[in-house]
Amino acid sequence: MDRPIGVIDSGVGGLTVAKELMRQLPKEELIYIGDTLRCPYGPRPKEEVMEYTWDMVNYLIKERIKMLVVACNTATAYTLDHLREHLAIPVVGVIQPGARAAIKTTKNSKIGVIGTEGTIKSKAYPNALHHINPDMVVHGLACPPFVPMVEQGLLYGPSAKKVVEQALAPLKQGHEMDTLILGCTHYPLIRETIQDVMGDEISIISSGDETAREVSVLLEYYQTLYQGQREPDHKFYATGDQHLFEQVTNAWFGDHVASINAVTL
Amino acid sequence: MDRPIGVIDSGVGGLTVAKELMRQLPKEELIYIGDTLRCPYGPRPKEEVMEYTWDMVNYLIKERIKMLVVACNTATAYTLDHLREHLAIPVVGVIQPGARAAIKTTKNSKIGVIGTEGTIKSKAYPNALHHINPDMVVHGLACPPFVPMVEQGLLYGPSAKKVVEQALAPLKQGHEMDTLILGCTHYPLIRETIQDVMGDEISIISSGDETAREVSVLLEYYQTLYQGQREPDHKFYATGDQHLFEQVTNAWFGDHVASINAVTL
Repeated sequence: MDRPIGVIDSGVGGLTVAKELMRQLPKEELIYIGDTLRCPYGPRPKEEVMEYTWDMVNYLIKERIKMLVVACNTATAYTLDHLREHLAIPVVGVIQPGARAAIKTTKNSKIGVIGTEGTIKSKAYPNALHHINPDMVVHGLACPPFVPMVEQGLLYGPSAKKVVEQALAPLKQGHEMDTLILGCTHYPLIRETIQDVMGDEISIISSGDETAREVSVLLEYYQTLYQGQREPDHKFYATGDQHLFEQVTNAWFGDHVASINAVTL
Repeated sequence: MDRPIGVIDSGVGGLTVAKELMRQLPKEELIYIGDTLRCPYGPRPKEEVMEYTWDMVNYLIKERIKMLVVACNTATAYTLDHLREHLAIPVVGVIQPGARAAIKTTKNSKIGVIGTEGTIKSKAYPNALHHINPDMVVHGLACPPFVPMVEQGLLYGPSAKKVVEQALAPLKQGHEMDTLILGCTHYPLIRETIQDVMGDEISIISSGDETAREVSVLLEYYQTLYQGQREPDHKFYATGDQHLFEQVTNAWFGDHVASINAVTL
């Protein structure tokens, strides 16, 4: 099927998911909207996140997407069930794939989750984990400084490490988790710093990689995998500051990005 | 939904998949048939594998399974499309999950596949890999001695290593693969020996683990995940020699196995 896959995020974080989609499904065409104007979603109330998410979804539906990927943990936590109820196409969030991968990875059934205030407050990860396996012990921690840090491009070095160390200190005390879910699509950009702080014995799960694989599963089961030969013409839209968005997409995708457009929702 | 998941295999190999299903989805109930009477399927013609597979499927359909897992690579290669066409429940094979995991894992797009003669001859793995990403370079190798070796319980030690070394020699010459798919559900039992022979730099993909995760994905999307509280009452059936079957299931599952029954198809 030659219709595109829609990907939405509050900003640039969802590009970690888009990048994995492009790597694992190189024939599929993406149309991505980053709501950079209203980023971050993490501290916003549920109703606002719901409204902004539907703004993006309505735009993409007109573009005839065959599948929707909600590449933002906060938006997944607040809107996934509602979107699935109201859309005729399959909707993939980033939380269930991360939860499933963590259950596959953990040996001691103790899992940590870090994310925005909204994601942690929603208890979406504990719910998703317990839905599959009620025996999992889950520790959640909100890390409000991480999204602004990533958006400012502070990813490595002593300053980055200091921020990460302070934020993760409560997780390192007394918990015996062996697996940590990066419950925000911005966090893979500081994955190395997080691994450094947490130690090598902790397995880190990035929802982006896992989500791309689930998209592949569902494309096959819904028989909507693209079958022809083409160089896909991906489209990237930003609602606000295009500068950072261009910087990140260029650094990440190089020649693959056909065009970055402004969009008003 | 409190209906069981059906799992079929030519013998004991599919227990590697069942074990992962039980670990990742501890609330789900399994009903497993191992066709030990007519094992191995690897050297048999397609028509025979098709007939034997339908014998097992027809039995399970009467047990009102909600999903079918074909935990045998040879049967998947020969019958998956046909089963999907004719069954109203979702059907999961072991080949696509293995292919997807290999694509996610490989860095250099060079993938090796080992399996039975039937699986390798069918080209099911190269087809599945190229269906998703045509740029993958795939080397297939049939390893006929492995299934009899595993069925005899020869898993470790110098004799096992010698058999594996001889069988895998053609894969080690001149190919730069970084990822090897165990394209037979018996092979996870000799995974350590295979890793030892291939070297630590090769990532080994076990279809069983991956298949369990895809079952979890589909249970969620088809909304058939079991929602209550229970200790599932798994059922294991063997068409032939129950001795080996009991030996393996007891060693692997301990207390989890409620009953092993003989069955005539």
